[in-house]
Amino acid sequence: MAAVAVTLVRRLLRSGPRPGLCGAGGRELGAAPRRAIGRVAVELDSSTGVAVMKMENLPVNSLSLDFLTEFLISLEKLENDRGCRGVILTSGAPKIFSAGLDIMEMYGKSAEHYAEFWKAVQEMWLRLYQSNMVTIAAINGSSPAGGCLMAMCCDYRIMAENPKYSIGLNETQLGIVAPFWFKDTMVNTVGNRATERSLELGLLYSPPEAHKIGLVDQLVPEEKIQSTAAAVMSQWLAIPDHARQITKSMMRKPTVDRLLAHRESDIQNFVSFITKDSIQKSLQMYMEMLKQRRG
Amino acid sequence: MAAVAVTLVRRLLRSGPRPGLCGAGGRELGAAPRRAIGRVAVELDSSTGVAVMKMENLPVNSLSLDFLTEFLISLEKLENDRGCRGVILTSGAPKIFSAGLDIMEMYGKSAEHYAEFWKAVQEMWLRLYQSNMVTIAAINGSSPAGGCLMAMCCDYRIMAENPKYSIGLNETQLGIVAPFWFKDTMVNTVGNRATERSLELGLLYSPPEAHKIGLVDQLVPEEKIQSTAAAVMSQWLAIPDHARQITKSMMRKPTVDRLLAHRESDIQNFVSFITKDSIQKSLQMYMEMLKQRRG
Amino acid sequence: MAAVAVTLVRRLLRSGPRPGLCGAGGRELGAAPRRAIGRVAVELDSSTGVAVMKMENLPVNSLSLDFLTEFLISLEKLENDRGCRGVILTSGAPKIFSAGLDIMEMYGKSAEHYAEFWKAVQEMWLRLYQSNMVTIAAINGSSPAGGCLMAMCCDYRIMAENPKYSIGLNETQLGIVAPFWFKDTMVNTVGNRATERSLELGLLYSPPEAHKIGLVDQLVPEEKIQSTAAAVMSQWLAIPDHARQITKSMMRKPTVDRLLAHRESDIQNFVSFITKDSIQKSLQMYMEMLKQRRG
Repeated sequence: MAAVAVTLVRRLLRSGPRPGLCGAGGRELGAAPRRAIGRVAVELDSSTGVAVMKMENLPVNSLSLDFLTEFLISLEKLENDRGCRGVILTSGAPKIFSAGLDIMEMYGKSAEHYAEFWKAVQEMWLRLYQSNMVTIAAINGSSPAGGCLMAMCCDYRIMAENPKYSIGLNETQLGIVAPFWFKDTMVNTVGNRATERSLELGLLYSPPEAHKIGLVDQLVPEEKIQSTAAAVMSQWLAIPDHARQITKSMMRKPTVDRLLAHRESDIQNFVSFITKDSIQKSLQMYMEMLKQRRG
Repeated sequence: MAAVAVTLVRRLLRSGPRPGLCGAGGRELGAAPRRAIGRVAVELDSSTGVAVMKMENLPVNSLSLDFLTEFLISLEKLENDRGCRGVILTSGAPKIFSAGLDIMEMYGKSAEHYAEFWKAVQEMWLRLYQSNMVTIAAINGSSPAGGCLMAMCCDYRIMAENPKYSIGLNETQLGIVAPFWFKDTMVNTVGNRATERSLELGLLYSPPEAHKIGLVDQLVPEEKIQSTAAAVMSQWLAIPDHARQITKSMMRKPTVDRLLAHRESDIQNFVSFITKDSIQKSLQMYMEMLKQRRG
Repeated sequence: MAAVAVTLVRRLLRSGPRPGLCGAGGRELGAAPRRAIGRVAVELDSSTGVAVMKMENLPVNSLSLDFLTEFLISLEKLENDRGCRGVILTSGAPKIFSAGLDIMEMYGKSAEHYAEFWKAVQEMWLRLYQSNMVTIAAINGSSPAGGCLMAMCCDYRIMAENPKYSIGLNETQLGIVAPFWFKDTMVNTVGNRATERSLELGLLYSPPEAHKIGLVDQLVPEEKIQSTAAAVMSQWLAIPDHARQITKSMMRKPTVDRLLAHRESDIQNFVSFITKDSIQKSLQMYMEMLKQRRG
């Protein structure tokens, strides 16, 4: 784990801040002190102990290696800040929470790169799923694949009831397979059968469907999502941190331990899968399809 | 596993085809090539890659050793046929999907016979639950005990909304106990609590109740069950086979491995249970009750 | 286990019967033979084989060491009585089923006392969760923490639909943590996600909410709770005992085995947690708050 963290920090120093991408959507949040590294805008309200982490990796908050690195460092800073007890995770990109793993990181790169990328994805899950802070996802846009995983890592999920938005682990639709710890996280959230059907069909759920199966906890009109998240957060913060943290760990540790026990083989699985000619080819086709859509 | 397969094939050769039982209900499906072995009518539509397996072990599709053997060989042929990607499992018997394990195989026979029978029941579950094909149950009749197990093995369950039909693992009502892998399959489908209550009370659910707890996925008017199954199948076949198969295996392998780790002791448990005087006596009483009902 | 039972019996002999607390609420049940030890009034109807265990540890059925000891002996007697096949667990205290573990047993006592108390709590869970009898909870009042655990141990839960009543594992609200086997029991009842949210927030559910998440099976008007329990019991007793008992054990044994494998360390955890200064202090504050409310 330490090695991973060192690697991630080194990457961040290498990649540096990204001027122009940082903060645009964050300013409207008010005058609270900003600790923006780049594509993650963090506002910590020291009076409430609640931070808002706004993802701003435009256009669709793809989980690139750089973005994951910044995300992890931002999260780690809050985790170590005794003045911060809760985090609201949301998006500054229009109409999308996060589009999930960045396909560019999975195409035409070296095996070393794939391994480094996958370690960062694992690390994001490990840190977010086990956070000592209360974590609330304010899902103000579509949230497929890795975006859905991030939401499922939180303690509570509020989704904007916009019928254009959808959420789910849709990997099979792209011909790829959600790893076992994505699956475990979903089973923990919606149960075995809903997960089985979701994953085999790569289902993306509308907000009402997602609410019905328990993939999100609450639907609200889009303009109320931040205020609702703040109100829910205050309910969670009424619980003594220590008792809540031990309880959360008791619930989630067995799932975390399964990945920790197989972390290296999970990386090897990913690398050997993604380097297959057939998979590289289908990713290429997928990216060309995306380009044509935009064009 | 190989030994079991050999034994099953040997049995089939011994028992031979059953003229008169084969195919009657299958002809109406059209002119597609028929590969009927006996009490399982198989129609494979080579244009869609979808086979319909119609159980025709009249009157109630009891899972006898001969029937299970034929069923397994039919399934295996489709599994090995690269032109077949999905199977719709349904019944050619009126008002019943399958009545479950054939009580005649559990009464007044030798320990060797009981062991051979139980191996075939295990094998049916292992093959159907892990099929590489998309499996859809078109439940056009009642489906108690082993019939419910077969339905639960499929990827998706559509049931005719006829109030006379019921489905469930009702073993305790007969004074017997569903084995642990029946239980595991039900837990995977409807969760722990619904399974606990179902199994302790031997509950048979009406179609709306079965739908409510998630034991079946969809209810349709009886005359639409085959067309609905075909429509749902085409949704499932839109997913790349490879990704779907790996996902299915990831979901189901831990459950399968539990039986494989205890397969022999599970057979011994069954044999020692079924050979008890008290169990033989209650099966005898049950059969006499059935005779009186029919008479 | 034997050592625990011996210790419990010894305690009972030491503590003796409690005149004045016994039986007041029980008389209205009629002329059936009473086997009251003290704060648990037992009425066994030998014609039906159904006993009613009425908790009468006034004012709120706190689970003190003495009360748990009496409860266990009463339960054990019924368990060993071949004329008793089912137990209805209910309360003789007004407006409360059970308030859960007695805080007086967790404050200002010796480590030895805490260990003895915790053994008795474990023993109550082990006996009730694995009872060979059909157990139905007639929840005629609020049921927080340990009271909710008792209800969850039963085979079926009927709750009075009085909006003033609530039920749940609310430990975190007091700054303490439900032990893993409380958690396991709740996961078995309502699934993983509802448990996670319940335990992290220490949620107490209204009767309709409890019914919706499956924490109770049925709601009835308060005056019908005993008659409904009797009617439900007769459905359960229609199932052959032997098959039902094996099925129940198959469902619950893995959960029981987890505690048995860690029973001593679970006691040590409790003792070291409860003897912490910070915990003792917060329990003291909680008790003072309760006193002020009453005063």
